[in-house]
Amino acid sequence: MCGSDQAIVTKDSKLSSGVVPEATDANLRPNLPVDAIINLDHGDPTMYESYWRTLGNACTVMFTGYQSLSYFANPKNLCWFLEPKLEEEIKKLHDVVGNATVEDYHIVVGTGSSQLIQAALYALSDALNEPKPVNVVSATPYYSSYSEVTDFVRSGLYKWAGDAHNFDKDGPYIEMVTSPNNPDGVIREPVVNRAQGMLVHDLAYYWPQYTPITGPADHDIMLFTVSKCTGHAGSRIGWALVKDINVARKMVKFIEINTIGVSKEAQQRAAKILEVISDSCSQTVRPPELDNFFYYSQHLLTGRWKKLREIVKCNGLFTLPKFPLQYCNFTGDFTKAHPAFAWMKCKEGVDCEKLFRGHKILTRSGKRFGSDPKYVRISMVSRDEEFDLFVRRLSTIHEIANGN
Amino acid sequence: MCGSDQAIVTKDSKLSSGVVPEATDANLRPNLPVDAIINLDHGDPTMYESYWRTLGNACTVMFTGYQSLSYFANPKNLCWFLEPKLEEEIKKLHDVVGNATVEDYHIVVGTGSSQLIQAALYALSDALNEPKPVNVVSATPYYSSYSEVTDFVRSGLYKWAGDAHNFDKDGPYIEMVTSPNNPDGVIREPVVNRAQGMLVHDLAYYWPQYTPITGPADHDIMLFTVSKCTGHAGSRIGWALVKDINVARKMVKFIEINTIGVSKEAQQRAAKILEVISDSCSQTVRPPELDNFFYYSQHLLTGRWKKLREIVKCNGLFTLPKFPLQYCNFTGDFTKAHPAFAWMKCKEGVDCEKLFRGHKILTRSGKRFGSDPKYVRISMVSRDEEFDLFVRRLSTIHEIANGN
Repeated sequence: MCGSDQAIVTKDSKLSSGVVPEATDANLRPNLPVDAIINLDHGDPTMYESYWRTLGNACTVMFTGYQSLSYFANPKNLCWFLEPKLEEEIKKLHDVVGNATVEDYHIVVGTGSSQLIQAALYALSDALNEPKPVNVVSATPYYSSYSEVTDFVRSGLYKWAGDAHNFDKDGPYIEMVTSPNNPDGVIREPVVNRAQGMLVHDLAYYWPQYTPITGPADHDIMLFTVSKCTGHAGSRIGWALVKDINVARKMVKFIEINTIGVSKEAQQRAAKILEVISDSCSQTVRPPELDNFFYYSQHLLTGRWKKLREIVKCNGLFTLPKFPLQYCNFTGDFTKAHPAFAWMKCKEGVDCEKLFRGHKILTRSGKRFGSDPKYVRISMVSRDEEFDLFVRRLSTIHEIANGN
Repeated sequence: MCGSDQAIVTKDSKLSSGVVPEATDANLRPNLPVDAIINLDHGDPTMYESYWRTLGNACTVMFTGYQSLSYFANPKNLCWFLEPKLEEEIKKLHDVVGNATVEDYHIVVGTGSSQLIQAALYALSDALNEPKPVNVVSATPYYSSYSEVTDFVRSGLYKWAGDAHNFDKDGPYIEMVTSPNNPDGVIREPVVNRAQGMLVHDLAYYWPQYTPITGPADHDIMLFTVSKCTGHAGSRIGWALVKDINVARKMVKFIEINTIGVSKEAQQRAAKILEVISDSCSQTVRPPELDNFFYYSQHLLTGRWKKLREIVKCNGLFTLPKFPLQYCNFTGDFTKAHPAFAWMKCKEGVDCEKLFRGHKILTRSGKRFGSDPKYVRISMVSRDEEFDLFVRRLSTIHEIANGN
C-alpha cells in the first residue's frame, strides 16, 4: 500500500453517536491546491474545529454592550481578575479528567500560558532577591519558546541557562518540566534535582487525547492552557495551579503590571467551553448527540498517528518516537500517547527542516529545541485537509530521497 | 447652598434624545450604605455602564464554539493577531473624532495599553543594542504605573529614570508623553527635547469627553485604549499607531513572545463597540433613540466636575486644576477639559491620601506620581452612586477640617 493515496487521505470517521463534522462554514478554507505551502511549524490547534462545529450553537456565548466594563472580576479573590465561573469550571474539569489536584491550590488565570511562565519566573526569582539572575533550565529537547520568553527583555531576575542535563552551577535555579514534553511527547520528571531547585511544571498536554492520564498531578506550580486542551488558541487563556499563596500572589502581581488582568470575554467563553467538555464526559449529563470531547479528539489523533506511522514505515527515511502502553484512568483502558507534535528524525547528516521546506512543508527545526537539525517538530493538530496534504506529500519525499 | 444635599446628589439628566439610563440589571450594585468605603484609587470606568445600558442588545456580540480557534487573525498582516474588523473600526473612529492621523500608520493591538507601553520600550531599546539600559523618563506628575511597568523584571534594555524635568544624562532616552496627562488632565509636550530622544505618546485620554480635540495627533508612537475611550476596561484592548514599520514589527514581536497575541473575543467585541460609537456620532447613521456617545459622556463628566468644583469651593480645603477654554473640532464648540481624574491639592503639609482614607475614601497619593503627598488623584469615572457618596462625604470633610 506504500505510496497509495487511498491509504493516506483522512476521512472523518463516524464515532459512536454518528456525528460527522460538517464543513460548511465560511471560516473553513477552500480546498488547498496540491502544491500549497503547508505550515506545520506552529501548533495551531485547528483540528478541534470539527468537534465544535458539531455543537452548533450549544456553546454560544453572548456579550451585551454593558457587561464586564470593570477591571475587576472578583475583588475579594487573590486573583482579582479571575472570573468566578472560569475558576469553577477549571476545578470541575480537573476533577472530571483526574489529571491534577485542585484542592488547596490557588488558581491564577493568564493571557495564555506564555504569560504564566513569565509570571512564575518572576514570582520565584523576585522572592529570592538575589544579586544575579536566577538560572532557568529545561532538558533538551525543550519547548522552543522557553529561551526567548526568559531572555527577551534581558531580565536581571532570571536568565536562560539551557539544557538541564548540563547544568552544573551552584545556587538557586528554576527547572521547567514539560510533561508530556513539547516537542517529543515524552512523560518527564525533573533532571537536576538539587536542593535549591524550584520547579515549574508545564502540563499543557496532560489531557486524555494526547497521553494516558496516570494520576492527578500535584506539583508546586502547574500550568495549563485552553489552547491545547480545547483548541481555542485564539482566546489566549491559560491557568496556573499554585500551592504556595505567596507565589500565587506574586504571579497575580506580574499579570497586574504586565496586562492589568486578562480579557473577561475570553475568560467567560473559556468557562462555557470547559463546562461543555465536562458535560460531554458525563454519562448522565451528556446529550445523546454529543460525543465525549476527549474520546473524539483522541480518535482523530489516533487516526492521524496511524497514517503518519504507515508513511514513515514505507519510505524508510524518518523515524518517530515510540510510546509505552499505559493504563489511562480517564478512559479506563490501556492506551499509547498520540502527541500534538510529531518529533521526527531524519537520517544522520540531513537538515530535516530544510528538506521539508524544499517540499513546501514548514516545520520547526530540532535546533530550536536545543537539539539536532536532523530532527523537526511537526504539528499534528492542523485541519484535516492540511494533514492530508502533508502525509500525501511526505510519501513523495520517500521517492526523492531514493534518487528522484 | 454649601453643605446642602440637594446641591450634591447626581441626577441623570435627560439628554436631547430623552434617554434616561435604566438601572435595572442585577450587575448594578445595590445602594451603597452611607458609611461604605468608596474606592476611587483606580480609574475603573464604570461610569460608562449607563450609556451601554441604553443600547440594550444593539451591540451584543456572539461567539459560537467553533469560531476563532486559531492563533492567527490575519497571517498576511504585519500584526498577524489583529482582527481585520478591529483595525477597520479603529481607523474609522479616529477619522470620525479627528484625534489622530491613521494614514500611513501601522496598527498594533495589545492586551490593554500597559502591554503596548512595554512593547514600545522593548522595540525602541532593543533596536539600539546599547550595553546599558536606556533611560525612561516622564515629567512629574507622571502616570503611577510607568515606573513599575519599566522596572518590574529589572530589564537590561530599559530602566526608569524618573522625572523628565530633572533628566540630564547623555545618550539615548525614551520620554513618555501623556496627553492629556494622567493624573492632572494637562495637555503636554515633550520636556527633554534632546537629539537622542525617543518619544512614546500615551493618548489614552485624548477623546472628546475628557478634553477639547484640537487636531489630529501625528506622533511616532501613539497609544490608545478601549478602557478609557469606551469604558470597557475588562476587555483589555489597547492599540498603538506606529509610524516606523521596524518599530511596529518589534512591538508585534514583543506581544508574540509575551502573550502570543491578544484575545480574539475581546478584539471582536471592541470592534463592535467602536463601530457603535462611530455610528452614534453620525447624523445620517445614528438611530433617533441613540445619543452621541461622546456628547453623553461629556455631559456626565461636565456635571460631575461642576458638582465637585462647587463642594471644593464651599469647603475651602482643596484646590483643583483649572483648564483653558479651547475650540474642540469634534463638538464645534469652545469647551474646557473634564478629565477622568481630579488631581486634588490639599493645604500645605497635609497628607491628602491619609486624610481621605480617614473618611473611607480611597484615592491615590501624589507620591505615587512622583509628586507631593498634599496631592491625590481621584477617579471621576466611577458609578453614579459612588460619585454621589463621594461628593456628599467630601462636604463633611470641610466641617472636620474646620475643627469638628
